[in-house]
Amino acid sequence: METTPEQIEAHVSAAHEAYEAARDVPPAVRARWLTAVADRLDAHAAELVALAVEETHLTQPRLTGELTRTTFQARLLAAEVVAGEHLDATIDHADTSWGMGPRPDLRRVNVPLGVVAVFGASNFPFAFSVFGGDTVSALAAGCSVVHKVHSAHPRLGARTAELVVSALEDAGAPAGLFSSVHGRPAGPALIDHPLTRAGAFTGSEHAGRLLFDRANARPVPIPFYGELGSINPVFVTRAAWQARGDEIVRGYVASYTLGVGQFCTKPGVLVVPAPVDERLATLEAAARDVAPAAMLTPRLASSFRIARDALVQRGGVDLLIRGDASDTPAPTLMAISADRARADRSVLAEEVFGPASLLVGYDDEAELPGLAALFEGQLTATLHAEPADDVAALVRAIADRAGRVLWNGWPTGVSVTYAQQHGGPYPATTAPSTTSVGTAAIRRFTRPVAYQAFPDHQLPPPLREANPWGVRRRVDGAWHEPDRAR
Amino acid sequence: METTPEQIEAHVSAAHEAYEAARDVPPAVRARWLTAVADRLDAHAAELVALAVEETHLTQPRLTGELTRTTFQARLLAAEVVAGEHLDATIDHADTSWGMGPRPDLRRVNVPLGVVAVFGASNFPFAFSVFGGDTVSALAAGCSVVHKVHSAHPRLGARTAELVVSALEDAGAPAGLFSSVHGRPAGPALIDHPLTRAGAFTGSEHAGRLLFDRANARPVPIPFYGELGSINPVFVTRAAWQARGDEIVRGYVASYTLGVGQFCTKPGVLVVPAPVDERLATLEAAARDVAPAAMLTPRLASSFRIARDALVQRGGVDLLIRGDASDTPAPTLMAISADRARADRSVLAEEVFGPASLLVGYDDEAELPGLAALFEGQLTATLHAEPADDVAALVRAIADRAGRVLWNGWPTGVSVTYAQQHGGPYPATTAPSTTSVGTAAIRRFTRPVAYQAFPDHQLPPPLREANPWGVRRRVDGAWHEPDRAR
Repeated sequence: METTPEQIEAHVSAAHEAYEAARDVPPAVRARWLTAVADRLDAHAAELVALAVEETHLTQPRLTGELTRTTFQARLLAAEVVAGEHLDATIDHADTSWGMGPRPDLRRVNVPLGVVAVFGASNFPFAFSVFGGDTVSALAAGCSVVHKVHSAHPRLGARTAELVVSALEDAGAPAGLFSSVHGRPAGPALIDHPLTRAGAFTGSEHAGRLLFDRANARPVPIPFYGELGSINPVFVTRAAWQARGDEIVRGYVASYTLGVGQFCTKPGVLVVPAPVDERLATLEAAARDVAPAAMLTPRLASSFRIARDALVQRGGVDLLIRGDASDTPAPTLMAISADRARADRSVLAEEVFGPASLLVGYDDEAELPGLAALFEGQLTATLHAEPADDVAALVRAIADRAGRVLWNGWPTGVSVTYAQQHGGPYPATTAPSTTSVGTAAIRRFTRPVAYQAFPDHQLPPPLREANPWGVRRRVDGAWHEPDRAR
Repeated sequence: METTPEQIEAHVSAAHEAYEAARDVPPAVRARWLTAVADRLDAHAAELVALAVEETHLTQPRLTGELTRTTFQARLLAAEVVAGEHLDATIDHADTSWGMGPRPDLRRVNVPLGVVAVFGASNFPFAFSVFGGDTVSALAAGCSVVHKVHSAHPRLGARTAELVVSALEDAGAPAGLFSSVHGRPAGPALIDHPLTRAGAFTGSEHAGRLLFDRANARPVPIPFYGELGSINPVFVTRAAWQARGDEIVRGYVASYTLGVGQFCTKPGVLVVPAPVDERLATLEAAARDVAPAAMLTPRLASSFRIARDALVQRGGVDLLIRGDASDTPAPTLMAISADRARADRSVLAEEVFGPASLLVGYDDEAELPGLAALFEGQLTATLHAEPADDVAALVRAIADRAGRVLWNGWPTGVSVTYAQQHGGPYPATTAPSTTSVGTAAIRRFTRPVAYQAFPDHQLPPPLREANPWGVRRRVDGAWHEPDRAR
């Protein structure tokens, strides 16, 4: 099943040719390609979800929801392409009275980068895999994609890829615009290939950093958009704890055990007033309510066992709810005092991928901003507070180290929208100024080109005076909505 | 004069504190800080330009123009900050009918990164130095700056920094928001400092790559915006050569010898129909008209001598106009056939920083796209053509490897505008999706943060429902201009 080096060479070459053939198609055509794939996957939902259940042990409702989200995402990004948001088309007409001296006619547009290597994730077999956010945003940008299927769901990956390829072909896209490869050696080979222009990855900090370093060590470095690890701490004020502690505890357990604790946004730490065992009965009841299920792969189950055991044995860590690391692990809950966490902040940096989490007990609410500052970069950080709480310093502290901050919510569940930011400071990601979810994800795969004093007919369509693609543009400093009536 | 490690520590710490103190000020206040510095520098123009003439050997008109451009840039970016363009404020209201399932209230805004290390350039003592584009865009973003003064103009650097610091202080900005350091060891020390959040550099490919690698090798990598080297090739069609060859030749010589050939956008290669000596008399006359001047530093003069001699001795390279590498070098012009360049494309990758350039003679215009493809990433690439020329393939080829493409112009001279793109694929820059000139430069120093389900009063001002800062925002997918009447 492993793709050979010769095959990888052929995939990347074909992807480059397809990129060349497809890069200039009008947005409406590109949008049709994306929606054609979404339609095809929806039409095969039952088959795909059944395969996914078999290979991932995730539940059918969870997987059905994930597929819905995946095809919704493709259609939302297709609409964004038609609007031309990602092009950032900007026109400055020649201006002899420009303040620093005469300005030539300058027009800028974002162009696609080329072949993108996309790495599938183990834990989202649809939304962060074959036709997930990275693939869809790269295709939306006008790039081509060679996708490395994750070994956790090889049959689902192969079948999904087959459907993507055939839907693209039926929609008239050039062959090779999307293809998939298998096997561990494919990863470095894709990152090293001279025709690869960007990498996109969701996975472990270890593997992600290796690939990031490799992308930067190339003779010609390429951007590497890696989503690595995150603890996703949640901070609870005293007032919130008193007003609705049981509700918070139930939400917490549901969130950290969701999908057997295998979400990148799983809350790995809950910071609450001491004593942390105050709500133990509710915690235990909530943990008992969690339906047992197997983890994604034996390898992840083994990693979970090791990481859980290591955390349990850390100095100052108490076992509050024992749980286990069996084939269908019962939730584990540990606890540590704020003082001990301050003395060894590395305890707050250990991501345990699976159904385990850590309570941190504080004595004084004024400690919270300082505790927040102990954490490394995060995808999310959450605050549970009451309206009268003075949390300005805490809000700032969590916003300082996370890509998304939540108020009285739970970080699992990432809506695909215009404003979404799924990213964050290292080690949450290798590129904190970008997002891998939402419409803003498209721009990762473009770069700007400015055209100076070009004749109108030699310009790319979005920069021509008549705006034939009907995209939103900034002209002489002011934004103009397209005339959609045309 | 060299800043000690202890002093660097103090500079970075002070810069971090100033960033914390200043990050939330309203845009109008930040804009006043920037314009206050611009006003101060303009008020000291005569003194600064005189110092610059002494230290750089560039002409007074050239330096006066550069200072005008520098303060104009600060005012343009200040206006951009007030408009809030760089914030990319985006609001998605909660929506229960959202296609993938109920959407929470999500609001995203770009926040400043923190302390930025800015490296001054040798060749633009104002526009790419102390208060140049990198410093101004970092301050505009809400960051603080520690600036490493280039050793080519230490007194000008120190004096400019003094004026920047005092103008900021008088305008009420926190102490330490901007400071300057001196000496070679300061570079790696600034990049390595844990509180440094980004680097910005204009200089050689060698030094830039070392710092880029260092920024990526940190435990927590930081973005490094390096502008390194560029050949800036110019392609001339046969029709253009026949119609206005003499005019092209004169423009070429003026451009490649401007500022003693020390522009990062200097045209280092002119590709014309063979025989390349057809316009030799005009070339020689133009070269004779160039007023002799010294290079920026003895070190750059020595590097020029070495690079020029090496290129002259390359196989297939003929000396068309001998010139020299004296203290005030006379322009050198070399030539090579397209066939020889194809046989050894590295000859097209040798940047000679100084008044020398290379003519490449082609036989068939159909060779041009292929010749363009021999070049590495470029800041600019230029085309001289006539209206009837069929150059679509060549336009695509040059846009493929450059950040800015020009039609019938010369790449030296980079206007500061909304649409400007001063960047390009590696090795032109280490971050091809960004620009170091123009209003778009600000975003390099920000990252997005999304707020989920926050109470209005806990949101940053640009995300509050009432839009107190009056910035342009995207709300539920549609952009809204602020009500400027408020």
